[in-house]
Amino acid sequence: MSEKNIIDAWGDLDITDYDHLFKQFGMKKFEDLDISNHHIFKRKLIIAHRDFDRIKDSIVNKKRFAQITGIASSGQMHFGHKLDVDFFMEFKKLGALSKFIVADIDAYLSRPDSKVPDMKKAKEVAVENVMDLLALGISKDDIFVQSRMCPEYFQLSFECSKKITENQFKGIYGHINPGKLGAVLLQLSDILFVQSDQVFGKCPTITGIGLEQDPHARAVRNVSKMINYDFTVPSFFYFTHQAGLKEGKKMSASTPDTAILLSDSDKDVKKKINRAFTGGRETAEEQREIGGNSAVCKVYEMQKFHNPSDAELSEIDAKCKSGEMLCGECKKKCIDYLHGFLGEHRTKRESFKSDAEKMVYGK
Amino acid sequence: MSEKNIIDAWGDLDITDYDHLFKQFGMKKFEDLDISNHHIFKRKLIIAHRDFDRIKDSIVNKKRFAQITGIASSGQMHFGHKLDVDFFMEFKKLGALSKFIVADIDAYLSRPDSKVPDMKKAKEVAVENVMDLLALGISKDDIFVQSRMCPEYFQLSFECSKKITENQFKGIYGHINPGKLGAVLLQLSDILFVQSDQVFGKCPTITGIGLEQDPHARAVRNVSKMINYDFTVPSFFYFTHQAGLKEGKKMSASTPDTAILLSDSDKDVKKKINRAFTGGRETAEEQREIGGNSAVCKVYEMQKFHNPSDAELSEIDAKCKSGEMLCGECKKKCIDYLHGFLGEHRTKRESFKSDAEKMVYGK
Repeated sequence: MSEKNIIDAWGDLDITDYDHLFKQFGMKKFEDLDISNHHIFKRKLIIAHRDFDRIKDSIVNKKRFAQITGIASSGQMHFGHKLDVDFFMEFKKLGALSKFIVADIDAYLSRPDSKVPDMKKAKEVAVENVMDLLALGISKDDIFVQSRMCPEYFQLSFECSKKITENQFKGIYGHINPGKLGAVLLQLSDILFVQSDQVFGKCPTITGIGLEQDPHARAVRNVSKMINYDFTVPSFFYFTHQAGLKEGKKMSASTPDTAILLSDSDKDVKKKINRAFTGGRETAEEQREIGGNSAVCKVYEMQKFHNPSDAELSEIDAKCKSGEMLCGECKKKCIDYLHGFLGEHRTKRESFKSDAEKMVYGK
Repeated sequence: MSEKNIIDAWGDLDITDYDHLFKQFGMKKFEDLDISNHHIFKRKLIIAHRDFDRIKDSIVNKKRFAQITGIASSGQMHFGHKLDVDFFMEFKKLGALSKFIVADIDAYLSRPDSKVPDMKKAKEVAVENVMDLLALGISKDDIFVQSRMCPEYFQLSFECSKKITENQFKGIYGHINPGKLGAVLLQLSDILFVQSDQVFGKCPTITGIGLEQDPHARAVRNVSKMINYDFTVPSFFYFTHQAGLKEGKKMSASTPDTAILLSDSDKDVKKKINRAFTGGRETAEEQREIGGNSAVCKVYEMQKFHNPSDAELSEIDAKCKSGEMLCGECKKKCIDYLHGFLGEHRTKRESFKSDAEKMVYGK
């Protein structure tokens, strides 16, 4: 069984396996939940970390540190992506020098031509993504469009190619398709380049990823030690993915029914939430009697990941479990929340269209 | 037997094999020797071509065309490299839009760390190479340093990665080492990017290479048809390599005794030519009687490749074959020629040092 297969955590990994994974791969359980009061910390969405200690030290003692995250999307951003942005905004508040990369070349390379046929399409998607990022509150200065990076960034990505052997690459990724290798070289530079003289210089860096992306994290940490630069080994935290709206499905912009897109209309939102998988029972009578199962409910999960009100979340959970509130009413609450959020977001994102175009096309 | 092995022409390929190679690989014999009066054309140093017809058409009918060549060197330039420059200068005279790339990242990636340990070394070498190129008469505007290319150049190199499969790459190069793949991606963009809007736009392009580099030429011609750009398929001409000074040895900057470097001192030149492999006989008597063998002589080859005087060349050949001139005298002629050439070159190249540093480091 390859390492890649052992860590493939798209929602299917049972929490009881973690201790074993931590032991085998050297991750540690994330226990610094008190580093922030934001609900994404309090609700334990971060599971594990590598070298978070130096980030905590930087935050507590107000030392320089940087965060780097990004998106290589083949389409519109959804609420799963919003979680990355929420973490990004919060680490920025905690003092991080910040870089959010919109990885248009990576998106083109790592997707089949049927999804992203050319860089023209990748850049159109990048414009949409930048509009969302700006509307979610990320500063223009913190957004880097990959296809417009400086030569030193690209040089570093090529330098990384000399620091991975064919066997290492296959061990990590299972194959060595040239396009996929190209995407990986860019990803390595995305994370390492923030420590270059052209960006923030040497400092601890933090990147949040899903557990299934740990092979990438290990690759970049290895390369950081081998490359001819004086870099601090990058730190990572691992968060739980928000699942898709259907039973057992990953959220994905390319199967739209599984995800609420940040560009969805009110009508789309209503339709998708009403069709979402819930913890409801066979009949209304049964549910009034024994209560719903919020633990498996995708509507509840949406509230848990995104609704900042602890009071509302507790109330929903309690009323669900007691059978006081049935799925119809609960879905309506969620739809109302999303309509409110997206109504505002929709207006904001449109206002950033020309800014986003300038950032992607340079004119 | 892989294609790579079939075409491995470092001096060992007998001219009688060419017809077979031409038939198998679709190259054509180069017959447009009258396109220029320069001695490198008249002396038949070009053997074969792919699609030279459209270049000839551009020259004859004064249409736009471009040439792209370059150097990815691990050390000082030698007289083998000078031949590339001679072709470059001549095609420039024939009307080519011209780009000479100093491929410092490629040099770092395609050489072991023992030769080029880091980009610092690669850039030091690049400075030395640029000094030589400027001293040989190439215009500053025609020299492009790879590590300082624009983002669109690097984007194109990554786009190329999606247009080669693992099997194609292995078929062409025999393996798929990530660093080597990185170097190939840069080489593809080196040749194709001249047709981008950022450089000369779509036009026929010509690149001169050794026969053994034909796998690269086929790769770039394939990719030019698959990539999402409107490119003319690049043309190539194939020239004979100047052999090293030792018997059967390739000229190489990393085994200095095989090559005269453009930075060699007069003393070095004298020593190397005096130790060169010649077509001399066992004894002076024998040589006076039956004459020398200029066809295998590395000193004669140096004259043939670089001395522009047809009269001097014919005289050397005739006097050698008749036994009138022995190797000592002939070597002295060659040393005198090289001392004259390099004396002037040495002064010029030093005068370009600060220009070269600016071009490589950007300051």
